[in-house]
Amino acid sequence: METVLERILGSAALDAETTRPPRLLAAMRHGALNGGKRLRPILVLEAANLFGRSDQGVLEAACALELVHCYSLVHDDLPAMDDDDLRRGQPTVHKAFDEAAAILAGDALLTLAFDVIAGEAVHADPSVRLRLSRGLARASGVGGMAGGQMIDLESEHLDRSEADIRQLQSMKTGALLRYACWAGAVLADADESDLHCLTRFGEVTGLAFQLADDLLDVEASAETMGKATGKDAEAGKATLVGLWGIDKTRDELARLSKDAETLLEPYGERARVLTALADYIVKRSN
Amino acid sequence: METVLERILGSAALDAETTRPPRLLAAMRHGALNGGKRLRPILVLEAANLFGRSDQGVLEAACALELVHCYSLVHDDLPAMDDDDLRRGQPTVHKAFDEAAAILAGDALLTLAFDVIAGEAVHADPSVRLRLSRGLARASGVGGMAGGQMIDLESEHLDRSEADIRQLQSMKTGALLRYACWAGAVLADADESDLHCLTRFGEVTGLAFQLADDLLDVEASAETMGKATGKDAEAGKATLVGLWGIDKTRDELARLSKDAETLLEPYGERARVLTALADYIVKRSN
Repeated sequence: METVLERILGSAALDAETTRPPRLLAAMRHGALNGGKRLRPILVLEAANLFGRSDQGVLEAACALELVHCYSLVHDDLPAMDDDDLRRGQPTVHKAFDEAAAILAGDALLTLAFDVIAGEAVHADPSVRLRLSRGLARASGVGGMAGGQMIDLESEHLDRSEADIRQLQSMKTGALLRYACWAGAVLADADESDLHCLTRFGEVTGLAFQLADDLLDVEASAETMGKATGKDAEAGKATLVGLWGIDKTRDELARLSKDAETLLEPYGERARVLTALADYIVKRSN
Repeated sequence: METVLERILGSAALDAETTRPPRLLAAMRHGALNGGKRLRPILVLEAANLFGRSDQGVLEAACALELVHCYSLVHDDLPAMDDDDLRRGQPTVHKAFDEAAAILAGDALLTLAFDVIAGEAVHADPSVRLRLSRGLARASGVGGMAGGQMIDLESEHLDRSEADIRQLQSMKTGALLRYACWAGAVLADADESDLHCLTRFGEVTGLAFQLADDLLDVEASAETMGKATGKDAEAGKATLVGLWGIDKTRDELARLSKDAETLLEPYGERARVLTALADYIVKRSN
């Protein structure tokens, strides 16, 4: 994965006729090659693998999705958004470069994703590549991730209902995780009932991911700072753990974990890695 | 065109299953439905028309390109970039809403373009839609418009050579104008030699557009403020008119105008509107 991302973000343009300005490319690399967990592309790979496909083309599609995720982090970190100076212990892009470079690097990472997903290796059938490209646009845009981020920013210091928070999270973090599992199945020509099952698995996994994230935030603050509210609560962010408390959230996570397992049961041993991934998401500590 | 843009940016999502947060949608509409000249989409329509295609699908593709142009204006106007409070006499998106909304609205307009260009009406053949989508990504990204904007920001208060300024402009404004003419021909299944000719016409038109823009900037300042340097010069922007002076720039514009006409001569009367458009670009006063 890192090798493919490194090549995609190398100084040689995918389109041999164009040049890539070095400073913008450096800002894009800073935003994308920073030791992320690569959870979304790994879900793509494993979902495709479940239906018997694992080759370079799947990796390319997986990297396109990761570029979208990385662009969203670069923009979310900006002073006008979450205003974060550090990500994974490194200065964020606008700190390492400047705000203009971070805005443009995010824009260019997002745009590059739609170049990469259209690549011939991704799938022999252009209509499948187009379906993947359009799906990526829908998962990322006003009805998906970008829309969710907007609702999240608006939700600060507002009392939101459980339904509102679920909607927000299904857009902000859920949409890309659902896309990852769906796209893997599409890449491997899975049939409609398998696509449906993987999409459901992606939804459940997305919700579990968000709950685990919220729990981590509260628990990390309790341990390291001796207080029971995390930085989400201090920022006035609407979370389900804020609404439910820790115990109910843990119960819900266990239920989701069981759901994910049940969804993959029909695939037996072949789904071992995907099941382990879902388990990691529930139990992860960072 | 406005009707189609209005529908694309309506509250009903293209994908019926998703919802669009009202405030983000409002910011996107503010950035896109603000009385622009629609030069790029008109070039798409007229280039397609030259080869006998004019239908709803061409309009959709043209609007996808306009969404990309509008996103770039929303982001370029941000305080960290060109820091403009007004566009066409209206508050810019970050003034009418806030910076976070402007960043997300730009992101979502860009993303929406890749949803729209993949629409079935655009072309019956998915591989043509994919070609248009990938071309749009390349014209807009690190090797095109976004890269050009980065070089432009870096160029402030630097002495740039003519070759450097040409490179910058061919990326920043040239890439989308070239794409517009190429895409129109692709939409209408023009053959390779016609594609080549329209691409060249797009390049010439792009360069003329930029020179006319630079001249307008200098001349408007001379008339309205009684001084011979425009706001580009004051911002330390690298322009060819700054390098050449007004007279040489006018000569070059006349030459480009002639080139554009010559490129379209083989198409005779059918190219009347495109020729008039190129002429308008050279002679426009705003």
